[in-house]
Amino acid sequence: MGGHGHPYSPAELQLPGFVPQRLSQAQIVAPFAGTAVLAVLGAWLVSGRCGGGGRLSRTDRLLMGWWLFTALTHLVFEPPFLFTPDFFSKENPNYFDDLFKEYSKGDSRYAARDTAIVALEAITVGLKGPASLLAVYAIASRKPYGHILQFAVSLGQLYGCLFYFVTAYLDGFSFWASPFYFWAYFVGNNSLWVVIPTLVATRSWKKISAAFQADKVKTR
Amino acid sequence: MGGHGHPYSPAELQLPGFVPQRLSQAQIVAPFAGTAVLAVLGAWLVSGRCGGGGRLSRTDRLLMGWWLFTALTHLVFEPPFLFTPDFFSKENPNYFDDLFKEYSKGDSRYAARDTAIVALEAITVGLKGPASLLAVYAIASRKPYGHILQFAVSLGQLYGCLFYFVTAYLDGFSFWASPFYFWAYFVGNNSLWVVIPTLVATRSWKKISAAFQADKVKTR
Repeated sequence: MGGHGHPYSPAELQLPGFVPQRLSQAQIVAPFAGTAVLAVLGAWLVSGRCGGGGRLSRTDRLLMGWWLFTALTHLVFEPPFLFTPDFFSKENPNYFDDLFKEYSKGDSRYAARDTAIVALEAITVGLKGPASLLAVYAIASRKPYGHILQFAVSLGQLYGCLFYFVTAYLDGFSFWASPFYFWAYFVGNNSLWVVIPTLVATRSWKKISAAFQADKVKTR
Repeated sequence: MGGHGHPYSPAELQLPGFVPQRLSQAQIVAPFAGTAVLAVLGAWLVSGRCGGGGRLSRTDRLLMGWWLFTALTHLVFEPPFLFTPDFFSKENPNYFDDLFKEYSKGDSRYAARDTAIVALEAITVGLKGPASLLAVYAIASRKPYGHILQFAVSLGQLYGCLFYFVTAYLDGFSFWASPFYFWAYFVGNNSLWVVIPTLVATRSWKKISAAFQADKVKTR
């Protein structure tokens, strides 16, 4: 820990009453990674048994896992940050307080409660979370709005990530405690929400364009 | 003008070397409003003459006008802000410098070069501008990706507006020189990019869902 009572960068960041983290990195990462594995596995097993009117494709079953995991991230792991402005100074920190203390090593704007971060998290928790859950249902029930919904949420996630990186760049690009945290948390963790939404959005774009292409051919 | 050498709120805002605005409100608003009228009128007239394979619907012709106007806003009126960080202190201000001096009366974060604003404008100019222009072409050429493209850009505009309002709220909601500027610029001007994208996105959502609904019925 630096001379400023916290382990974050920049060192000038003021966090009065900072309570050091109790959980180790492994204790923080394990429940999050476990949620990811359980969500994908659970969705895979359940979706293999349901499916009125023909089986769901493997891609759709994997996508249900992704949407379940991203919904749990937006609706379980992120809201505590939003509703606990004093998470870094709470005397009896819970798992989520320590989660955001750990993540702040990769982006101290979380501990600093930067406006752009709070706005992003509010929109993510309020809109993308429920919409991700709806996507699980839409795929399972083969709703006609399934593709446009998945496209909309993916685009929102991509827009959010772009905003996240651009604001970090404009504000000096110096919010990580070390290169390890830069690559592991700021780049690594967030790249999940860049790579997968890009794949999902591209797939939905193609399926939607194909539906109109087919429509055009048929009506000629 | 206040005692701080500028007419903006909050008065504590520091704008060293501020050069007072030369153009009147009418001189600033007229070219912008004129662009809107010319874009919609021009697109209407041209689209009435083109259209291989059947006429374009009235809605599509009006939408071409909207996309042309919004493209011109993103690609002509907004880039000067992005590339002129010193617009408020330039000795020989041009139209665009004065445009953003006037708009800053409704949101002084423009003059202050707030990170969230610069990030939003960068994304708008770099992505939404070219994509809006592509939407004009996609409608005219009846491309199969027309609806998903219009949906994508509209959703980006809505996401941007939401972010714009949420960051203003989080930062104290006090960036307008008077209630007039709050309602006319901060609310009024931006509501155009809330109301129209909502209508466009809803329409595209319905058309896309209907295409998959029809597909489902046919393949049964």
